Amino acid sequence: MKIIDGGVTAAAGFEAAGYEAAIKYQNRMDMALLYSRVPCRAAGVFTGNVVKAAPVLWDKEIVAHSPYAQAVVINAGIANACTGKQGYDCCRQTAQKAGEMLDIPADSVLVASTGVIGWQLPLDKLKAGVEKLAEKKAATPEAGLDAVKAMMTTDTVPKQAAAQIEIGGKTVTVGGMCKGSGMIHPNMSTMLGFVTTDLAISKELLQEALSEDVKETFNMISVDGDTSTNDTLVVLANGLAGNAEITERNEDYAKFREALHYVNLTLAKKMAGDGEGATALFETKVIHAATKEEARTLCKSVVCSSLTKAMIYGHDANVGRIMCALGYAGVDFDPEKVDLYCEAGGDRMQICKDGMLTDYDEEKATKLLSAPEVSVIVDMHRGDAEAAAWGCDLTHEYVNINADYRS
Amino acid sequence: MKIIDGGVTAAAGFEAAGYEAAIKYQNRMDMALLYSRVPCRAAGVFTGNVVKAAPVLWDKEIVAHSPYAQAVVINAGIANACTGKQGYDCCRQTAQKAGEMLDIPADSVLVASTGVIGWQLPLDKLKAGVEKLAEKKAATPEAGLDAVKAMMTTDTVPKQAAAQIEIGGKTVTVGGMCKGSGMIHPNMSTMLGFVTTDLAISKELLQEALSEDVKETFNMISVDGDTSTNDTLVVLANGLAGNAEITERNEDYAKFREALHYVNLTLAKKMAGDGEGATALFETKVIHAATKEEARTLCKSVVCSSLTKAMIYGHDANVGRIMCALGYAGVDFDPEKVDLYCEAGGDRMQICKDGMLTDYDEEKATKLLSAPEVSVIVDMHRGDAEAAAWGCDLTHEYVNINADYRS
Repeated sequence: MKIIDGGVTAAAGFEAAGYEAAIKYQNRMDMALLYSRVPCRAAGVFTGNVVKAAPVLWDKEIVAHSPYAQAVVINAGIANACTGKQGYDCCRQTAQKAGEMLDIPADSVLVASTGVIGWQLPLDKLKAGVEKLAEKKAATPEAGLDAVKAMMTTDTVPKQAAAQIEIGGKTVTVGGMCKGSGMIHPNMSTMLGFVTTDLAISKELLQEALSEDVKETFNMISVDGDTSTNDTLVVLANGLAGNAEITERNEDYAKFREALHYVNLTLAKKMAGDGEGATALFETKVIHAATKEEARTLCKSVVCSSLTKAMIYGHDANVGRIMCALGYAGVDFDPEKVDLYCEAGGDRMQICKDGMLTDYDEEKATKLLSAPEVSVIVDMHRGDAEAAAWGCDLTHEYVNINADYRS
Repeated sequence: MKIIDGGVTAAAGFEAAGYEAAIKYQNRMDMALLYSRVPCRAAGVFTGNVVKAAPVLWDKEIVAHSPYAQAVVINAGIANACTGKQGYDCCRQTAQKAGEMLDIPADSVLVASTGVIGWQLPLDKLKAGVEKLAEKKAATPEAGLDAVKAMMTTDTVPKQAAAQIEIGGKTVTVGGMCKGSGMIHPNMSTMLGFVTTDLAISKELLQEALSEDVKETFNMISVDGDTSTNDTLVVLANGLAGNAEITERNEDYAKFREALHYVNLTLAKKMAGDGEGATALFETKVIHAATKEEARTLCKSVVCSSLTKAMIYGHDANVGRIMCALGYAGVDFDPEKVDLYCEAGGDRMQICKDGMLTDYDEEKATKLLSAPEVSVIVDMHRGDAEAAAWGCDLTHEYVNINADYRS
C-alpha cells in the first residue's frame, strides 16, 4: 500500500466542487458536490441515534434499494434534523435538482447535512447551489479540497486521506474526506465521511468491508460522547481502475481492506485530534484484554471520561482518573492486575503497576502529557485481545464553542 | 413531615466534629467524626465501580457482617483508592484507633475518604486526628456543620438537610450531610453521604428503604459522567426516638421513606447544583414514558450530555441537542411524538411539538435558561411512567478545576 496526497478526487472518475450558498454561514463555501463520471456501488453506515436526520433516512433508502449511486450533495450550517416531512421532501427535491443538472436518476443522488438541528433548509438556495456546483465540478485535487472545506462546521482543518494498492496489475486508489468536531461519538457520528475508490467490487463485499472497518476506526473515536443525528459514512466504488471485480474474500479483498482501513483510520484520528477546542489527540490502547469487545469498551471509557480529558488538557498525570474510568466501564476485572503506561513521541513510561501508582517522575510525565499526541497504554493481563480508541482533551475552548453554537 | 434546619446531629444521640489534620489541605478542616451515643443499625450503598477504594471495601464488610455501627471517621484530600493492602490496613488501624478512643469495637467504626486517587494516607496524622475528634465531638448544629465542612473537596457549599415525622406519638428525626462536586455520576457516587436517624427500624427494612430511595435520588444525578471509586452513602439509625421498632412495610415505614426521600433528594440536588464549576442546577423530567426504567434512562441521557450542559451555560435554547441526547439514550421511540418544554421559576414554555421546534420566543427562552435552576420537561406520549434527573452546566471553571486538580 502506498500513501498518497489527496482526497475524494484521487480515484479515477471522481469529481468534486464547493460553493458559497449562504445557507447559514456567510463568506465561506457551505455546499459541496461529489460526483462520479460512471455509476458506483454504494455502501453506507449511519447514525445509531433514534432521532435520524432527514438526509440519513433518504440515504439509507438509496444505499439499500437503488441499483447504484453517482453523486452526493452536501451542505453545512443546518442539519435538516427534527424537520419532519418538510425536511424529507427537501432531500427529495435537492436530489431531483441534482439529477436534472447531472443527467442521472434522482435516486442515485445522496444528500448529507450538518449544522443546527431543528431548522428547515432554504430549498431555493440549495437548488441554486446545486446548479453552480454542477457547473464547477472538476477531478482536481483543488476541487476535492473545496468540497471538504465546504462541509466544515466547527472543524479547524480540512480532513482528507488517500492510498493506492495494486490489484491484478491495476492501480486502485482509495481516497476520503470527512468533517466533524463536536457531537462526535460515532455509533456509526455529526460526522460526515465520504470515501471514493475506482475499485471494482460487489456491493455486498463493499458494505461488509465498510461495516467491519468502522468498528476499528470511526466507531472508536469520541469528542464529547454525543452521538449525532446526522452521522453518515458512505463509500462509492466506480470500478474505473479496471481490475476484475472482487466478489469473494480473497487476497485482493484483503488489500482493499488495508487501504480502506488506512483512509478511515487516518480520517477518524484527524477528526478526534480536531475535536472542538482540542489541543491534543488522546489515544488509549488496551492490550491483553480477555476479549475484543472488552478491550473496546475499556479504551472507549478512558477516552470518553471528562476527567481524563481535562487531565490531558492540564498535562497532569492524575493516574487515578484512568483507573476510575476503567473501573466504571462495565467490565468485571481485578484492578490489582492492571498496569498503565503513558507514551508520546516514542517515549514510554510506566505510571501504574498492579493497580497502584509507580514512583514515576512527575516532571517527565508532565512532559509526555504536553505532547500534541498522547497515548495511554492499559495492560489488563487477562488475554490476547486488544483495541485502541481516540479522543481529545476537554478545554475552555470546547465550552466557548458550545455555550453559544447557534450564533 | 416537617422540614427542619440541621444535618447529621439533628437526630437524638448523634454527635459530630471536624478537625484540621493537614493531610493534604492546609489551613482548613479535613477530618470529620460522626458518632452515636448508642449502637446503630447501619445500611449502605456503595460505588458500582470495579475499582473500589479501600474504605469502600472496609465499610461493605461492616455493613454486611457487623452487628452494629456506631461511628464514622472521614477524611478529605486523599481518596485511599488504588492503594492495595497498605490502604486497607490503614482503614483497619484508623477504625482501631477510633474504637479505643470511643470505647467501642473497631468493627463498629466506618471509614470514608475522598480526594486524590493513588496516594497513601499518612496514618500518623489520621490517628492524631481521631484523638482530637473524639475529644471535640458534640451534639450541636455547629459540630454537624464542622463535620460537613471538613469533608468538602471542590464543593463550594456545605450540604445538609433534615426533616421530622411523627411515628406512634414519637418525634422521629432524619438528618443528613453529603459532599461531592466532581467525579459525580453515582451508580450507587466521589460522593460521600451520611444520614442519621433516631428511628427504631429493622436492619433489613433500613437497607431496603435506602436501596430503593437512591434509585430516585443520588443515582439520578450527574456532574461529569464519571462514577467515582469512593461513592458511599450510609444511614445510621440508633432508635433513640423511642418508637416501636418498624419491622414491616406499614404506614410508619411509608412515613420514614418520605422523610428519608426528602433528605436524600435535597442532598442529591444540592450536590448536582454545586457540581464543579456549575452556575445552574439542570433538571430533566421525563413524563408519559412507557416504563420507569425508560424514563430514567432518557432523563439521565439529557442531563449527562456535554452539549446540553454547555447549552445551559450559554443560556442557548438549542433544542436539537436535547432531541439528540434522547435519541442516543438506547430507547427505541418515535421522535415525531415527542414534546419538549423548558421551565424556570414556575414559568413554562413549549419548545418542541411532535419532534419539531415550535416557533418559540427566543428572548423568553434565553431568560428561562438564565435562571439558577432550569428544567426541561420531556413528554414522550407513550405511557404513564415518569422520572427526573439532575445535573449542572458545563463551564470554563469545570475545566479549570480538573485540568490541574492535584496541585
